[in-house]
Amino acid sequence: MLNKTICVAITARPSYSRIRSALSILSKNKNINLHILCSGSALLNRYGRIVDYIQRDGFHVYDELYTYVEGDESINMALTTANTISLSAQAFKKLAPDFIVTIADRYETLGTAVAASYMNIPLIHIQGGEVSGNIDEVVRHTVTKLSDFHLVSNEYAAQRVHSLGESLNNIFITGCPSIDIAEEAKHISQEVLTHSLQQQLGSHVFNLAEPFIVLLIHPETNHHEESFNNMFLLLTLLTKLDINVLVFNPNVDSGSDSMWQALEFFKKGYEQNRFYYINNLEGHVFLKLLTLSSCLVGNSSVGIRECAYLGIPVINIGERQNGRERANNVLDVAWDEYEITAAILQQLSIRHYPQSTLYGNANAGERIASVIDSLS
Amino acid sequence: MLNKTICVAITARPSYSRIRSALSILSKNKNINLHILCSGSALLNRYGRIVDYIQRDGFHVYDELYTYVEGDESINMALTTANTISLSAQAFKKLAPDFIVTIADRYETLGTAVAASYMNIPLIHIQGGEVSGNIDEVVRHTVTKLSDFHLVSNEYAAQRVHSLGESLNNIFITGCPSIDIAEEAKHISQEVLTHSLQQQLGSHVFNLAEPFIVLLIHPETNHHEESFNNMFLLLTLLTKLDINVLVFNPNVDSGSDSMWQALEFFKKGYEQNRFYYINNLEGHVFLKLLTLSSCLVGNSSVGIRECAYLGIPVINIGERQNGRERANNVLDVAWDEYEITAAILQQLSIRHYPQSTLYGNANAGERIASVIDSLS
Amino acid sequence: MLNKTICVAITARPSYSRIRSALSILSKNKNINLHILCSGSALLNRYGRIVDYIQRDGFHVYDELYTYVEGDESINMALTTANTISLSAQAFKKLAPDFIVTIADRYETLGTAVAASYMNIPLIHIQGGEVSGNIDEVVRHTVTKLSDFHLVSNEYAAQRVHSLGESLNNIFITGCPSIDIAEEAKHISQEVLTHSLQQQLGSHVFNLAEPFIVLLIHPETNHHEESFNNMFLLLTLLTKLDINVLVFNPNVDSGSDSMWQALEFFKKGYEQNRFYYINNLEGHVFLKLLTLSSCLVGNSSVGIRECAYLGIPVINIGERQNGRERANNVLDVAWDEYEITAAILQQLSIRHYPQSTLYGNANAGERIASVIDSLS
Amino acid sequence: MLNKTICVAITARPSYSRIRSALSILSKNKNINLHILCSGSALLNRYGRIVDYIQRDGFHVYDELYTYVEGDESINMALTTANTISLSAQAFKKLAPDFIVTIADRYETLGTAVAASYMNIPLIHIQGGEVSGNIDEVVRHTVTKLSDFHLVSNEYAAQRVHSLGESLNNIFITGCPSIDIAEEAKHISQEVLTHSLQQQLGSHVFNLAEPFIVLLIHPETNHHEESFNNMFLLLTLLTKLDINVLVFNPNVDSGSDSMWQALEFFKKGYEQNRFYYINNLEGHVFLKLLTLSSCLVGNSSVGIRECAYLGIPVINIGERQNGRERANNVLDVAWDEYEITAAILQQLSIRHYPQSTLYGNANAGERIASVIDSLS
Repeated sequence: MLNKTICVAITARPSYSRIRSALSILSKNKNINLHILCSGSALLNRYGRIVDYIQRDGFHVYDELYTYVEGDESINMALTTANTISLSAQAFKKLAPDFIVTIADRYETLGTAVAASYMNIPLIHIQGGEVSGNIDEVVRHTVTKLSDFHLVSNEYAAQRVHSLGESLNNIFITGCPSIDIAEEAKHISQEVLTHSLQQQLGSHVFNLAEPFIVLLIHPETNHHEESFNNMFLLLTLLTKLDINVLVFNPNVDSGSDSMWQALEFFKKGYEQNRFYYINNLEGHVFLKLLTLSSCLVGNSSVGIRECAYLGIPVINIGERQNGRERANNVLDVAWDEYEITAAILQQLSIRHYPQSTLYGNANAGERIASVIDSLS
Repeated sequence: MLNKTICVAITARPSYSRIRSALSILSKNKNINLHILCSGSALLNRYGRIVDYIQRDGFHVYDELYTYVEGDESINMALTTANTISLSAQAFKKLAPDFIVTIADRYETLGTAVAASYMNIPLIHIQGGEVSGNIDEVVRHTVTKLSDFHLVSNEYAAQRVHSLGESLNNIFITGCPSIDIAEEAKHISQEVLTHSLQQQLGSHVFNLAEPFIVLLIHPETNHHEESFNNMFLLLTLLTKLDINVLVFNPNVDSGSDSMWQALEFFKKGYEQNRFYYINNLEGHVFLKLLTLSSCLVGNSSVGIRECAYLGIPVINIGERQNGRERANNVLDVAWDEYEITAAILQQLSIRHYPQSTLYGNANAGERIASVIDSLS
Repeated sequence: MLNKTICVAITARPSYSRIRSALSILSKNKNINLHILCSGSALLNRYGRIVDYIQRDGFHVYDELYTYVEGDESINMALTTANTISLSAQAFKKLAPDFIVTIADRYETLGTAVAASYMNIPLIHIQGGEVSGNIDEVVRHTVTKLSDFHLVSNEYAAQRVHSLGESLNNIFITGCPSIDIAEEAKHISQEVLTHSLQQQLGSHVFNLAEPFIVLLIHPETNHHEESFNNMFLLLTLLTKLDINVLVFNPNVDSGSDSMWQALEFFKKGYEQNRFYYINNLEGHVFLKLLTLSSCLVGNSSVGIRECAYLGIPVINIGERQNGRERANNVLDVAWDEYEITAAILQQLSIRHYPQSTLYGNANAGERIASVIDSLS
Repeated sequence: MLNKTICVAITARPSYSRIRSALSILSKNKNINLHILCSGSALLNRYGRIVDYIQRDGFHVYDELYTYVEGDESINMALTTANTISLSAQAFKKLAPDFIVTIADRYETLGTAVAASYMNIPLIHIQGGEVSGNIDEVVRHTVTKLSDFHLVSNEYAAQRVHSLGESLNNIFITGCPSIDIAEEAKHISQEVLTHSLQQQLGSHVFNLAEPFIVLLIHPETNHHEESFNNMFLLLTLLTKLDINVLVFNPNVDSGSDSMWQALEFFKKGYEQNRFYYINNLEGHVFLKLLTLSSCLVGNSSVGIRECAYLGIPVINIGERQNGRERANNVLDVAWDEYEITAAILQQLSIRHYPQSTLYGNANAGERIASVIDSLS
C-alpha cells in the first residue's frame, strides 16, 4: 500500500499549535491522506473552538467528538476520558487509519491512546518523555507505554522514553514543534496582533506600547482545591504593581471552574482599569504578544519551551512544571505573594534573555512530517 | 413494607424550585426515606450549583452525577441524555427506590424516565400534560408515556395526559408547585433580596427603588441557530429604553452557548451603565425580585405560571411557550424589534395585574406530598 | 434538494426481516441514498450477525455500532439504550441524513428515536400503534411520540397513533412488511430450507417429512425472573409428546440469559433425540419452515402476524402479545402445563387455517418505499 | 484515621482466584472496611457469575457494574474499558475509598486504574512487572504507570516495575497469590471435585480414574483473526489421541466469539464421546482437577504459575505467555499440529514435575494483606 491514512487526534488548542507546522507539510504529501479528529475543548466556544481555525487553515476535519463532561471535580477528567475512548474508537473503526497521532500529555489524550492501542492501530506519540509535576506527568508516561512510535523534543526525553522500556528503534528526536510556532511568531506583523486583541477586547483599548505582563495560569490537578485561592492571590498582588495585565483564561483541567469563579469575584470587587481579559488568541498570535510583553507570569509549559527560544522572562509558579528541563529565562517560585512579587520585579528589570535551543531550533514540524512519512 | 424509599431526580434549578415545597413535607414523613439524585446543570458552577442549596436546605443528596456534555449543538442534548440514563440507572440499582420522581420537561429528564421505566421502578411525573413550543413539548409527552403516575397542574393538563392513553386512576391534579414558591416569595423581606443581589453584583450597586426590567431568555431548541441574533436583538433594543435592566443567564439547552457569546459581544461594544448581569438567584428570591420589577421580558415558563399568580406584566417572545394556557398578564410577541418594544411600553404602563389561579393556589406541595404518601 | 439521504437503523434480526422488502425498492430509487446503520444484536454472533446478511443482500451498511451491554438484569436494557443514543447520535452527525427510519418496538430503538428527535432529524417509525403486553408496549408508544411520520400496519394502529396526539397527515397505513416476507416464504424451495437446516444442525439430521413443532420463546420483560422456569416448563412438557421439536434461541431481552441456562440445564438432564436446536435462520427461511410445521409454540409476534397470513396454527403463551389484534389461528394460553399441552393437541388436530389479511396483503414494502419517496 | 476503606476491583474470575486468600485475611482485620466492586465478566452467566461466589464466600460486594459490550472485535475492548472508567469512577466517588486494589493485567483493569489515578485515590496493583505476549503486556505496564503501590510476584517483576520508573519504596515482593490457591487445591477432597463436575456435565459422566487432558485456551488478542482456526486445529488433533479431554470455555477477549463458534462447529461435525465441556469451575476446584490430569494444553498463565508449583506437565501454545519466567514443567510450542502433538505425547510420558517456587511459596495472601494493612 503506497497511500497511508493518518489520523491526528486534537483535543485542545495547544495540541494544534504544536502539530500545525507538521500538518502543513503532511497535507502536501500526495502519499498521505490526512484527517484531523477533534474532541474535548477543541470544540468548545469557551476555549475558542480551535476546530474552526483548523478548518480555516485548510485541514480536513474528519469528525467532531463532543466528549467534555462539564464539572470541576476530578471525576470529570475520568468521565471525559471514557467518552474520548468510546467516540474515538467508533471514529477509528469507520476511518480505519494506518497510523494515529496523539500529542503531548493532556488527560483526555489517554483516551485516544487506549482506543488506538486496543484496536491495534499503530500510535505515534509526540512530545513524550518530558517531566512535569501534575497529572500530565502520569498521563505522558502512560501514553508512552501505549504508543508504538515516539517523536520527542530532545535527548533527555529520548532517554526517559527508552528507560520506560521502549525500543530505541522507535524513538526519534525531532525537537519540540512549539518552537516552530515561536519562530513563526517573530514574523507576524504588529497589525495582526492589534487586530486580534481588538476583536477580543472590543472598546476596552489596549496600548501595546506601554509595558505589560501576561498572566496564563492553569489549575494544578494534584491540588485543585487550591485553585480559587491561587488565582485570587495572583490577581490581587498584580493590582499592587503599576503595570497593565493581560489575563488569559485557564484550561479545562479540574479546578479551572474555581479559577473562573475567582476571576469573576475579582472582577466585581477590584479596580479593573489596568486589567484586560482575553478569551482566546491563536497560538502564534499569542506568542507574538509574549515577545512584546515584559514577562509571562503563570505555570504553562509555554513559559518553559517557547519563551526559552524567544528569550522572554518567565515567572513559573508552583509544581505544575516541576522537573521539566529549563533555560535560564525562568524564575521558579512557590505560591507565595512575596516570592512571586519579588520574581516579577526582578524579571521586569531584565527584559530579555538570549535564545535557547533546549527544545529545538524551529524545524520540528519538518522532522515530524518526515518521520511520519517514513513509517510503514 | 411500611417504609417507602423515594428518589427525586433533579437535573436543573427550576426542577428544584418546583418540588421544594413538596420535599419539605415529605422529608418530615417518618414512613418515607427521601433521597435526592442530582445531575446535569444542577451540579455546575455556571448555573449556580443548585445541589449545594439542596443540601443547605437539609435534604439528603444520595449522589451527584456529572452528565452534562458541554457544547452548543443538538447532539449535546442526545449525549447528555445518554449519560443520564447510564449513571441514573446505576444509582437506581444501588439505591433500589420504591418510587422515582421526575419533574417537568427538560430534555435530560427523558434519561431519568428511560432508566426508571426499563428497570420497572414506578415513575411519578410532575407537571405533565402541559403544552409549549419546543423540544420540551416532545419530552414532556414522551416522559408521560414512560411514567406510571401523573401529578399535573390543572384540569387541562389532566385531560391531555388522559388522551395520551394514561388511566384516570393514575392522574392527580395537584396544582403547579411553582405557585407555592410564588406565594412564599411574597413574604421574603427586601433585605434578603438586596443581600443576594449584592453578592451577585459586587460593587455595581443596583437600586431597587428605580423602575427596572428583568430579562430571562432561553434558546428555542427548534431554532437554536437563531440564538445569537435573538439575544443580541433584545439587548440592543433595551439600550434604547431609559430603564435599568437585570439580565439573567440562559439555561444549558442547545443554543445557550451562542447566547452567552451574544452577551459577551454586547458587553464589549455597548454602553453598560443601565445593565446588570446576574449569574444565579435562588428561585424564591428571584420571584421576590420579579414582584418589584416593572415587567419580565423573555420566554421562560416563569412568565406564564408564577407571574400569573403574582400579577406581574410579562412580554413573552417567540414560540417557546406556544400553546401553554395563560392568564391575561402575558403579551405574546414575535422576535421582532418593534413588536417587542411596543409590548414593553404597554406593560410598563400597566404595572400590575390581578392574581390568577390558573396554575394553582399555592398548595401544590402539600397535595403532591400527600399523593406520593398514598401510593403503594 | 432532489436527492434524499435515508438512514435506516437496524438493531435486531426481526427489524431487518420487516424492512427488507421496502429496502429492495428504495435501493433502486436513484433519488435516494440509502444507508443502513446496524447496532445491538444485529452485530452479535450469538444472534446470527444479521449485518452480514444485510451486506450480502447488497445494501450499504454505513456503520456498525456495538451497543449491547451483556447481562441479564433490567439495567442492561437501560445501559444498552444509552449506548445506542451516544453512538447513533455520533453516526447521524457524520452522515447528516434527511430522514431516519426506525422499526417496531424493541427497547433499544428508543435510543435511535431519542438521538434523531433531539438532533431535529425527521424520524419515520414503522409499525407503531400496535398493542402488546411487555416493555415493547411502552417503547412503541414512546417512539411514536418522538417520531414525525408513522407507517402503520392497519386501521386499528392508525387510530391508536392518532389518539396519542399525532396528526393524521403524518400517519400512513402501509400494511405490515412482515407479511411481504410471509408471501415470499411460500415460494422458497424446500432445498433451500433443507440446506439451511443442515448448516445449523450438522450431523444431527432433521426429517422435514415427519410432523414437528417449532418452539420460539422470548422472555417477558415484566416478569423476567420467571424466565428460567417458563423455558424449563415448556421443554419438559414437550418431552411428553411424541413429536419432533425445533427449538430456536430467545432474543436479548432481560431474562434471555436465564432462558439460555434453562436450555443448557435441559440439554444435560433430559433425553434429547427428538430435540433440534437452531441458532439462527434467515427470516424468510424460518417462515418457510413454519409453513411445513404442525404448529408454532411460543410468544413471538410472528405467531400473530405472519402465521395469520400463512394460516399456521399457533399456541401463544403468556402476556407478551396481550392486546395485539389476532386472527383465529391463535390459541392464547397461560404459563400452565395443562393449558399449553391441551392447546398444542388441539392445534395438531387442525393443521391449517385460512389466510387472514389482518396485517396486510403482502405489498407493505412497496407502500413503505412509496411513502418514504414522497416525503420531503 | 485508624480505619481504612479498601475497594478491591474484580472484573473476571481469575482476578478473584488470585486475591481470595488476601481477602480472607483483610476481611478479618477490624481496621479495614473491605468492599468488592465487581464488573466485566465477573457478572456474566456465560462466565459463571463469579460475583455470586464472592458473596457466598462472605465478602461484601459494594456494587455490580455491567460494563461488558458484547462483540468479537477489538473495538469491544475499548468500549468495555470506557464503561469501566465511567461506572467505576461513579462508584469510587460514592464510596470514597482510601485505597483501590486492582489485580493483574486484563484489558478492562486499565479502566479501573484510569478512574483511580484521575481521582487521586491511591492505587495498589497486584502482579505487575511480569512479561507476556499479548495486549496483557501493554496493559500490565500501563497500569503500573498509573499505580502508586506495586505488590509483585518475584524479584524479576520487582526489577521490571522499578525500571519503569517506580520508586523501590513502593514495590513489595509478596509472591503470586495464585500459588496460595494452588496449595489450597491440594487439600480439596476428590468428592468436591466429582460433585462440581457432575453439576457441569449432568448425565455425561466423567471418570476421573481414566487419564485425561485439560484444554484451556484463550484468544491471542494480537492475532485474534486466527482464533477460529487455532481452536479448531486443537480440537481436531485431540480427536486423534486416545484420551479423554475436558474442554474449558475461553475468556471474553476479542476473538473469543470465534473460538466459541469453532467449538460449536466442532461439536456438530465430529465424534464427541471422549470430549467433555465445562462452562465454569471455581478456581481451586479447577486446580484440584489439574492435579489429577495428565497434562494441561493451552495458553493460560495457569500453566506457567500454578502448574509450576503443582508440578503439572503443560503444553503452552503460541505467543500469549511469551517472556514470562517459567519452570521446567512447560513445553512451549507454536500453533502447529505436529509440534503440539509431539509435545503432548512427551508430557504424557512424564506425568509429574517437582514443585517450583518461582512464583511464590503459598503465603502471598498473607503478605499482600500485611502490606495493605501497613499502608497509610
